[in-house]
Amino acid sequence: MKGVILSICPSARLVDLTHDLPPHDVLAASLALDSALPFFPAGTVHLAVVDPGVGSARRPLALRVGGHCLVGPDNGLFTFALERAFRESAAKRGWSAVCLTEPAYRLPAVSRTFHGRDVFAPAAAYLAAGVPLERLGPPVLDPVRLPVPGCRLEHGELVGEVIDADRFGNLITSIETDRLETLPGRGAPTVEVAGRPIGGLVDAYAEAREGAAAPIAGSTGRVEIFVNAGSAREVLGVGRGAAVRVRRAR
Amino acid sequence: MKGVILSICPSARLVDLTHDLPPHDVLAASLALDSALPFFPAGTVHLAVVDPGVGSARRPLALRVGGHCLVGPDNGLFTFALERAFRESAAKRGWSAVCLTEPAYRLPAVSRTFHGRDVFAPAAAYLAAGVPLERLGPPVLDPVRLPVPGCRLEHGELVGEVIDADRFGNLITSIETDRLETLPGRGAPTVEVAGRPIGGLVDAYAEAREGAAAPIAGSTGRVEIFVNAGSAREVLGVGRGAAVRVRRAR
Amino acid sequence: MKGVILSICPSARLVDLTHDLPPHDVLAASLALDSALPFFPAGTVHLAVVDPGVGSARRPLALRVGGHCLVGPDNGLFTFALERAFRESAAKRGWSAVCLTEPAYRLPAVSRTFHGRDVFAPAAAYLAAGVPLERLGPPVLDPVRLPVPGCRLEHGELVGEVIDADRFGNLITSIETDRLETLPGRGAPTVEVAGRPIGGLVDAYAEAREGAAAPIAGSTGRVEIFVNAGSAREVLGVGRGAAVRVRRAR
Repeated sequence: MKGVILSICPSARLVDLTHDLPPHDVLAASLALDSALPFFPAGTVHLAVVDPGVGSARRPLALRVGGHCLVGPDNGLFTFALERAFRESAAKRGWSAVCLTEPAYRLPAVSRTFHGRDVFAPAAAYLAAGVPLERLGPPVLDPVRLPVPGCRLEHGELVGEVIDADRFGNLITSIETDRLETLPGRGAPTVEVAGRPIGGLVDAYAEAREGAAAPIAGSTGRVEIFVNAGSAREVLGVGRGAAVRVRRAR
Repeated sequence: MKGVILSICPSARLVDLTHDLPPHDVLAASLALDSALPFFPAGTVHLAVVDPGVGSARRPLALRVGGHCLVGPDNGLFTFALERAFRESAAKRGWSAVCLTEPAYRLPAVSRTFHGRDVFAPAAAYLAAGVPLERLGPPVLDPVRLPVPGCRLEHGELVGEVIDADRFGNLITSIETDRLETLPGRGAPTVEVAGRPIGGLVDAYAEAREGAAAPIAGSTGRVEIFVNAGSAREVLGVGRGAAVRVRRAR
Repeated sequence: MKGVILSICPSARLVDLTHDLPPHDVLAASLALDSALPFFPAGTVHLAVVDPGVGSARRPLALRVGGHCLVGPDNGLFTFALERAFRESAAKRGWSAVCLTEPAYRLPAVSRTFHGRDVFAPAAAYLAAGVPLERLGPPVLDPVRLPVPGCRLEHGELVGEVIDADRFGNLITSIETDRLETLPGRGAPTVEVAGRPIGGLVDAYAEAREGAAAPIAGSTGRVEIFVNAGSAREVLGVGRGAAVRVRRAR
């Protein structure tokens, strides 16, 4: 993929975001992409390929969202990035998308198993070289969006779930930290994971007792569960989908 | 290695191909290198170091093949790249090679265990900076080529073997897809791995039943065996060397 | 982090050193950093984040040492780099350091868990863009230095320990190869790991019998223990802290 990009756009600057995503895990990739997106300069082209449906009817996609271009399969990989766009511009449509069908912007031979190299890398390179998005193919109005694990107020509690674990075993939840102030009651918020109370939010990893799980306001605006000098995934034995509840003492 | 390259050739642009090769596995590295090679711009210098014989009598090498430079130990790492060169230019010699003995193009002190840093990175950097290949040392006429797992027609079947597995557990075979048309018979080709029939070639991963192994035309021109949303290596319990047979129904 | 750097200093050239360090292992990171440091061009900014104390009272640091800038948490990450500076310039102070408190050189919002992105990446980018070190915050005179596993002459033996293992399972020891000549006696030096004799230093991995452990002069100036075509960590079943002794026959 890097060779293809540099062949088409020799001045492109390549930045590896991660190669450690679990195979076939579109939701984890979507989250990782969205964590990085807002910190890159406007005009960056983001190329993401977690593509179990390669060669099937799933559409190859390029999007423009909030000053960035995104290129990859239309399988939900851009769910979180699109959520943000939908949220930030409910009134006007803050994004546009095309289906990458224009043969001039693909490799001459397209394989059955590696569209990252044959379709997505060329599209990203042509976009980086200044080709307008609209030239790459016909518009797409309904890019796939996966169901995003939510965060709801229920009987005075914020209820969500674990949506991912990072390489340290930290559990990222669907509970956004700016929702905490909507919690009724007066005490400090305390957190429960899979029915197990783990106490109130701490201000730093080092504040928690070694080996015990605790919650913290994570770096992507979500409540995270960690174990100081350990892995919350291992210590708690839970993963994606585990219920998370936050409440205040009365 | 990257520091050495940038010290010698500050304008070099560094591209990481992979850091996930299994230790000591020269054949896997050779295959990975050859998969990438044709997609990079002419003039690229490819530096590859899987070097269990570092410090022994094995020669340090730089090659020029098909518009590319390759630098690394002479242990068979360039087997597939040289195969291609031999095949594509049977008449005239399509490659040249030198032994990296010229002290001016090494680091002043050469360690016993890390020629990647002390010998190969400097050579690659000087090549990238425009030093002619011939200046780096005396010619080598017999670079090491490992026995390449073959693909032969036998009793109306194409017979080959598994040569590598990728990080998804896909099994790459020695059966080249353009050989399939040489198969006698009229039906669609069906594949057998280690004596176990796995059906005919599908057009996309998603066409196969989840959990079952199936063959597909892979992205490097070889028949590959995969498991939809799983690992063929684990499901079939086979690895390098497993027999692969392709035949047509009569 | 890369997006933050490129947003602040668009001309920065990013070089990944490693992403394979064990979580929370500050000493291993310090060693890895020091292995690379001397091979990069003067003026390089080295950004290192192994930061279990993020958000606590540990100071965020930038150092200038021997023509390089180093940025990261003040938890001992720069121990080996500072050792070198202290050793090389005992008379005059060969380094300076500041605490990264100046808000103008941080992201506007600083998270509790990811100072790599919010504090260290901006500091590194501003340094790369030419901002003088002193502008980033007040001086630090006592950067944290971890106890460095030593190497001492004792009853005619050099005594040290295993300080790290690399991805091949090679064991890196605290015994520096230039100390070997201080050993009394006349025979070749032989090595003992955790009470187990493993013979004399060989000149190349390939000289050792396959499967057996042997010592060699490693590429960072330390005695290393390896297993030819295998893992010394697994074969010997030892890791950091294991005693290492070198003696000569009388």
